[in-house]
Amino acid sequence: MYSFAQIIVFMKFTAQQIATIIGGTVEGDPLVSVDSISKIEEGTEGTLSFLANPKYEPFIYTTQASIVLVNTAFTPEKKISTTLIKVDDPYQSFATLMEFYQKQLEPELITEEPVKIHPTATLGENCYIGAFAYIGKNVKIGKNVKIYPQVYIGDNAIVGDNTTFFPGVKVYNNSVIGNNCIFHSGVIIGSDGFGFAPSAATGYKKVPQLGNVIIEDYVEVGSNTTIDRATMGSTIIRKGVKLDNLIQIAHNVEIGENTVMAAQSGVSGSTKIGRDCMIGGQVGFVGHLKIADEVKVGAQSGVNYNVKNTGTIIQGSPAMPILDFQKSTVIFKKLPAMDKKISELEKIIKDLQSKLQAN
Amino acid sequence: MYSFAQIIVFMKFTAQQIATIIGGTVEGDPLVSVDSISKIEEGTEGTLSFLANPKYEPFIYTTQASIVLVNTAFTPEKKISTTLIKVDDPYQSFATLMEFYQKQLEPELITEEPVKIHPTATLGENCYIGAFAYIGKNVKIGKNVKIYPQVYIGDNAIVGDNTTFFPGVKVYNNSVIGNNCIFHSGVIIGSDGFGFAPSAATGYKKVPQLGNVIIEDYVEVGSNTTIDRATMGSTIIRKGVKLDNLIQIAHNVEIGENTVMAAQSGVSGSTKIGRDCMIGGQVGFVGHLKIADEVKVGAQSGVNYNVKNTGTIIQGSPAMPILDFQKSTVIFKKLPAMDKKISELEKIIKDLQSKLQAN
Amino acid sequence: MYSFAQIIVFMKFTAQQIATIIGGTVEGDPLVSVDSISKIEEGTEGTLSFLANPKYEPFIYTTQASIVLVNTAFTPEKKISTTLIKVDDPYQSFATLMEFYQKQLEPELITEEPVKIHPTATLGENCYIGAFAYIGKNVKIGKNVKIYPQVYIGDNAIVGDNTTFFPGVKVYNNSVIGNNCIFHSGVIIGSDGFGFAPSAATGYKKVPQLGNVIIEDYVEVGSNTTIDRATMGSTIIRKGVKLDNLIQIAHNVEIGENTVMAAQSGVSGSTKIGRDCMIGGQVGFVGHLKIADEVKVGAQSGVNYNVKNTGTIIQGSPAMPILDFQKSTVIFKKLPAMDKKISELEKIIKDLQSKLQAN
Repeated sequence: MYSFAQIIVFMKFTAQQIATIIGGTVEGDPLVSVDSISKIEEGTEGTLSFLANPKYEPFIYTTQASIVLVNTAFTPEKKISTTLIKVDDPYQSFATLMEFYQKQLEPELITEEPVKIHPTATLGENCYIGAFAYIGKNVKIGKNVKIYPQVYIGDNAIVGDNTTFFPGVKVYNNSVIGNNCIFHSGVIIGSDGFGFAPSAATGYKKVPQLGNVIIEDYVEVGSNTTIDRATMGSTIIRKGVKLDNLIQIAHNVEIGENTVMAAQSGVSGSTKIGRDCMIGGQVGFVGHLKIADEVKVGAQSGVNYNVKNTGTIIQGSPAMPILDFQKSTVIFKKLPAMDKKISELEKIIKDLQSKLQAN
Repeated sequence: MYSFAQIIVFMKFTAQQIATIIGGTVEGDPLVSVDSISKIEEGTEGTLSFLANPKYEPFIYTTQASIVLVNTAFTPEKKISTTLIKVDDPYQSFATLMEFYQKQLEPELITEEPVKIHPTATLGENCYIGAFAYIGKNVKIGKNVKIYPQVYIGDNAIVGDNTTFFPGVKVYNNSVIGNNCIFHSGVIIGSDGFGFAPSAATGYKKVPQLGNVIIEDYVEVGSNTTIDRATMGSTIIRKGVKLDNLIQIAHNVEIGENTVMAAQSGVSGSTKIGRDCMIGGQVGFVGHLKIADEVKVGAQSGVNYNVKNTGTIIQGSPAMPILDFQKSTVIFKKLPAMDKKISELEKIIKDLQSKLQAN
Repeated sequence: MYSFAQIIVFMKFTAQQIATIIGGTVEGDPLVSVDSISKIEEGTEGTLSFLANPKYEPFIYTTQASIVLVNTAFTPEKKISTTLIKVDDPYQSFATLMEFYQKQLEPELITEEPVKIHPTATLGENCYIGAFAYIGKNVKIGKNVKIYPQVYIGDNAIVGDNTTFFPGVKVYNNSVIGNNCIFHSGVIIGSDGFGFAPSAATGYKKVPQLGNVIIEDYVEVGSNTTIDRATMGSTIIRKGVKLDNLIQIAHNVEIGENTVMAAQSGVSGSTKIGRDCMIGGQVGFVGHLKIADEVKVGAQSGVNYNVKNTGTIIQGSPAMPILDFQKSTVIFKKLPAMDKKISELEKIIKDLQSKLQAN
C-alpha cells in the first residue's frame, strides 16, 4: 500500500513557495520540491537543509539535499547541484519555516461536533475543542486553549491560557491548571491517591481523597503520566516542571520549579522535590521525603532519605552519593576476584601461623 | 486569569449552611464562608477545621481557620476569633460534611448523549452513563454503576453493582468485574497477553489469547494500570485487592485477596501472589512464581523465586530476605574501604612472609 | 448479581454445533454444551478439551470435560462419560474452533455512529470504524483495518492493511504505520520527545519535535506503551517487533526487526537496538547507545554502554555480562560474612605481627 521510502513527513513545498514564506531568493530550480528536512552533511533528495556554520560549507558541494538555505553573501566556488534559497540569516529562516510548518499542523480554532460542554462551563476566545471532548460543570477555560478530541475535563476544573491537551487527556474534578502548559495523550490528572485504612469488613477501607491537583504555568507532561490528587490540600507541580512519559506522581507530592524528570520515574506520597532538580529515568522516591534544590538523581535510583544539600548528586538503589556508588559498583564487578583473594590470604595466614608455631 | 492563592477546592459554604447540613449551632459570624479544609494547627482564612482531640484545644485560640467544629460542651476560656459550630461529635460531623461534599461531586444518575449502547446490553437501575461511552453486545451491567465519559466496555463483559469506571477506562470483551470496584482513568482490562511463538515467516507468530480477566468485589485499580487477559482460563484479581497506578499484571496472573501493590510494579505471566501481601513500588516478579500469603516485598525488588513461607519479608534485585539485603547494602557502600583493607592486609602478609623467611 | 463460578468465557456451543463447525462426528450426547476450554487432565464440566498426544490418553477416562475432540481412529477401551467428537486431526480442529470463536468476537466491518472522519481522509475496503473514533486530515487507511471506539488518528497519518487499533489508541499526526500491526488500548504513538533547552525566561524552552514515528509490518504493541516522535527524522520500530505493556520508547530510537521487549522497559533518546534482541521487563537503556543483534538483557537491568557483540547476554544495574552479574550477586549476599572474615584475618595478622616482633 505504501513504501517506507516514500514517507511524507512534511507537506510538499517547492523552492518558490519556501522563498515566498521566508522572503528569500531562489538560485536554481524554483519548482524542485521537498517534503522533509535533513542535516546538510546527511542530505538526501527531497529534503531541505541549511548552511549557517561556515565549517559545514564544503558539504554544500556534495549534499544530496534538494534545497539549501544559505546566506545572501554566499557565492559558490564550484558547481553546485542543489537549489539555493538566499536569506539574511539561514538558521533563523529555517526556524521560521519550521514554525510555519508546525502552524499548518495545528487544528483550526473551532469547536468540532459532537462535544459535550456543560452549560455552566466558560471558554475563553480562540479555543479548539475537538470532537468527543467532555467539559464538565463550572469548568473555566482560558483563551487560546487547545482541547483535542476525547479529552475529559471534570467539574470545577480551572485551566489558564495557551494550554494544550492532546487527545485523550483526563482531568478529574477541581484540578487547577496554569497557562502555557502541554499535556500529552493519556495523561491522567487528579485520580485518587492510593490511600486505604485496614478494615475488618472489607480488608481495606478507602480513605476519601478530598484534595486536588495544582499545575502551575509552563509545565509539560509526557504521555500516560499519572498525577494523583491530594488526600487533603493539593498535589503541586510548580512552574516550568517537565515530566516525561509514564511517570507516577502520588498524592500530596510537590515538584519544585523547573525540575525535570525522565520517563517511568515515580514519586511516593507527600514527598517534596526542590527546584531545578534533574531526575533520571526509572527512579523511585519513597514517601514523605524532602529533596533539596538542584539535586541530580541517576537513572534507576531508589531514594529513601532526605537530601538536604543543594546540588547533591546521588545514584543507586538505595541511593548514595554518586562517587560512592560508582566506586562501589566497580568493586561489585570484582567481588568474585575479591572473594578468591580473601581465601588465598586466609590460606597464607594459616600457613604463616603454623610456621610461626613451628619456629 | 486566576491566582494560585485563590483556588476554590471546595464549593463555598457559609457557617450557617454548614450548621444546617450537620445539625449544629453557630457561635460567631453565620455568614463567614469557607471553600477548603485544614488541620486546626495549620488553619488559614477561608478554611474549615475541627477540634476533636482535647490535646489540640490550645490551637483554637490561635488558628486562622474561619470556622471550627467543636463539641457542644466546649466553652472558650479566652477570646476566640474563629466562628464555632457546636455539634455532638465534631469528628463525625466533619466526616458527614466531607461525604456531603463528595456527593455533590458525583454525576447525576442519567445517560448523557451521545453514548453507544448495544441493544443487547442490559443495565441495572440508577446507573450513570457519561457521554461518548461505549457498551458492547450482551454486556451486563449491575445497578448503581457509574460509567464516566469515554469508557469502553467490550462485548459479553459482566459488571456487578456499585462499580465505578472513571473516564477513559477500557474493558475488553468477556471481562468479568465484581461489585463495589473502582477503576481510575486509563486502566486497561483484558488486553492480550504477551505471547508469541517463533515462526519462520514473520519472526514471531501470535499465540491467540483466548482467556479473560476476572476481577472480584471491592477491588480498586489506579490510573493507567494494565491487566492482560489469560492465554487460556482467567487472569484473576481477588476480592479487596488494591492496585496503584501504572502497574502491569500479565496474562494468567492471580493476585490474592486484600493484597496491595504500589505504583509501577509488574507481575509476569502465570505468577500467583497470595493474600494480604504488601508489594512496594517498582517491584518486578518473573513469571510462573508462587508467592505465599502476607508476604512483604520492598520497593524496586526483583522477585525471581517462589516464596513459600507466610509473612516473609524480602527486598533487593534479585530479592533476598530483607535483613540480609540491609546488611549487604551497608557493606556495599563500604566496598572501596574493604578493597583497600584487603590490599593492606596482603602487603602486611607479604611482609610477614619475607620476615619469617629471613628468620 | 452473578457468581464467579458461572463465568461465561465463551458463548455456549452444543456438541452438535461444534461437530458441524469442524466437520466431525458426535459420539455421546449431541446436546451437551460447553462455554469454556480446558486441558484434558484438568477438564471440568462445561468445558471442551482435545486429545492429540497419545501420552494423555489415560486422562480421557477420568476427565470431567464435557466434550473431547479425538482422532477418528480412537476407540475407547473402557467406559467413557465425556461426549466425543471424532475428527481427522483433533489439534487442528481445536485450533479451527478457536479461530471460529475469535471471529465471532470481531466487530462487524461497518462504520458506527458517531465518528469524525475528515473529508480528505481515505479508507480502504472492509474497515471497522468504532463509535467516537477520530480520523484527521489526509489520513490514509488501508483495507481490513479495525479502528475500535475512541481511537484518534492524527492528520497525515498513514496506516497499512490488516492493522488493528484497540479502543483508545492515540496516533499523533504524520505517523506511518505498516500492515498487520496490532496496537492495544492506551498506546500513544508520536507524542513529543522529551527535548528542552535551558532558557533564562522560562527555565527550559521546548525544542520543537519535528520528526515522526514509523512502525513497520507485523508489529504488536501492548497497552499503555508510549512511542515518542523523533526530534527530526523518525523513531523507527522495525518489522516484527513485539512490545509489551507500559514501555517507553523515546525520540529517535530505533528497534530492530523481531526484537521483543517485556513490560515496563524504557529506551532513552536516539538509542538503536539491533534485531532479534530479547529485552526483559523493567529494563532501562540510557540514550545514544548502539546495541548489537540478538542481544539478551535480563529484567531490571540498566544498560549504559554500547553492546558490540552479537548475542551478548547482560544483566544488572548497571549492566554487565550475565555470568559476572550472577557471580557477583551470589557474593553480594555473603558480604556480611566476608566483612567478618576480613576482620578476623586482620586480627590474626596483627597477632602474627606481634608474635614475630616478640620472636
